[in-house]
Amino acid sequence: MELVFLGTSAGAPTVFRGLPSVALRFDDGSICLLDCGEGTQRQMMRCNVSFMSVERIIISHFHCDHHMGLSGLLQTMNLNNREKSIEIIGPKGTKELVEHVLEPGYFRLGFDIIVYEAGDKDTLDLGKYTIKTIENNHCKNSLSFCIEEPMRRGKFNLQRAKELGIPEGPSYRKLQNGESIVWNGKRIEPDAVLGPQRRGRKICYSGDTAYFEPLSSLAEESDVLIHEATFSEEERSGAETFKHSTATDAAKIAMLAHAKKLFLTHISGRYGAGKELEREARKIFPNTTVAEDFMRYDVRYPE
Amino acid sequence: MELVFLGTSAGAPTVFRGLPSVALRFDDGSICLLDCGEGTQRQMMRCNVSFMSVERIIISHFHCDHHMGLSGLLQTMNLNNREKSIEIIGPKGTKELVEHVLEPGYFRLGFDIIVYEAGDKDTLDLGKYTIKTIENNHCKNSLSFCIEEPMRRGKFNLQRAKELGIPEGPSYRKLQNGESIVWNGKRIEPDAVLGPQRRGRKICYSGDTAYFEPLSSLAEESDVLIHEATFSEEERSGAETFKHSTATDAAKIAMLAHAKKLFLTHISGRYGAGKELEREARKIFPNTTVAEDFMRYDVRYPE
Repeated sequence: MELVFLGTSAGAPTVFRGLPSVALRFDDGSICLLDCGEGTQRQMMRCNVSFMSVERIIISHFHCDHHMGLSGLLQTMNLNNREKSIEIIGPKGTKELVEHVLEPGYFRLGFDIIVYEAGDKDTLDLGKYTIKTIENNHCKNSLSFCIEEPMRRGKFNLQRAKELGIPEGPSYRKLQNGESIVWNGKRIEPDAVLGPQRRGRKICYSGDTAYFEPLSSLAEESDVLIHEATFSEEERSGAETFKHSTATDAAKIAMLAHAKKLFLTHISGRYGAGKELEREARKIFPNTTVAEDFMRYDVRYPE
Repeated sequence: MELVFLGTSAGAPTVFRGLPSVALRFDDGSICLLDCGEGTQRQMMRCNVSFMSVERIIISHFHCDHHMGLSGLLQTMNLNNREKSIEIIGPKGTKELVEHVLEPGYFRLGFDIIVYEAGDKDTLDLGKYTIKTIENNHCKNSLSFCIEEPMRRGKFNLQRAKELGIPEGPSYRKLQNGESIVWNGKRIEPDAVLGPQRRGRKICYSGDTAYFEPLSSLAEESDVLIHEATFSEEERSGAETFKHSTATDAAKIAMLAHAKKLFLTHISGRYGAGKELEREARKIFPNTTVAEDFMRYDVRYPE
């Protein structure tokens, strides 16, 4: 699973940062977009992330900087003869947003859009992964969410397999794949040679929010927490006025959640490359990186 | 007067071309945008063209690639505390478009938007320049337009001034500025030392259109004709199907109009840098250049 930061600015873009969007590319090549600010389609082209592979778009809330790229992206998919349906998930109001986006009506889509409006503490089991949401503290209908892969099989215990006298080869593969085998007239269940089930990978995305402690439960044990950090601690009053987080707020959530890695995003133009925010957060949560446009991160399976 | 190409792609952006927009910067620093595709605000930032200096935006028609940047641009102006009103000019339907853009309602503008809906063969005298329109051949309510500065004073005839015995100095300046003077008890009108009035500069913009001969009248004697060239002659059937022009079509209009300079824009991704289109057009109209993003062109006064 790979994360690609497509846009890491706050409300207005800068020369170096596009408007908010993150691509989450799964091992099967399919992509889930986290927000879709203006210019997202072109950012994808610029870093070679296939816009045709997007199967799902999650919109965190309805401030324009988080969804103005939807219309152009859908239109370009259409120009490229997309037929496969696409899912758009967002807070209550997402259906209206999508209707609004399509309303100018100067193009007819050759594919379906399936919209799901998520509420507070919602769970969507999509097979490949589960999306869980909470309403956060930014504006009405604003969501944070996590994306979590299902539990996966335990480690294959080679020593145990040998003790059972199973010969190396196809039998091992079957057992690894969760199938039982018959060996020497005896049925062997995969559990006999597999360790306990292991967690899948888990990504948590704050969307826009002021410091919101319940987010640390949603983000519990995340491999990656992507958290907004629109302000530094010095500008806390701005964060409070506009219900955004400081870098310190983000780091506290990462720490409380026992996350493995924190990326700060939604970086205001006033912070340039954002190294000040990174230093601030690292005092609380050392494994912090300020995201940059086109930054990639390989999300490994937890040990 | 300077032209800056902000986006030179056709319906979908590419790595190298943004969606359609051209900035026309006048000598007083104010900017008129010709179309405003998705990402225009960021393209302006990337080439140091002040988005706060935009006083007028002309939208040629309502295909999404030509106006999806409006919302983000207006929002960013707002974030930068704009108070000065902005004018948006476009075909019938522009009021509805602007209402639509503002409808999500998640931001309240601190400045007014003045909308003017232009019809076929409309003339808008804006003082600094006049905008003339014609409905072209692309879709319903699709306009081509020209922007023309008013006539300016004739050249100062130094020899004639000397013959009249007027001494160099403040009197010259007054006469050049169109004021009469009194010299040796005799009233001298500026006409006595100024040549015939001279044309101002003239820019014509095709918007999207199939070959449309009346455009050559609108573009008559243009200093610059910016004409779409979505297809090459080899792909003429595509141009006909989608009511776009080939490079040859654009060159013919430039030739018939006796334009001084032709820029081809709205370049489809299939043509890359568009050199094939440039070669094609130059066979008919040699002074042709395929526009690139961030290309600048100084529009000089005609002799």
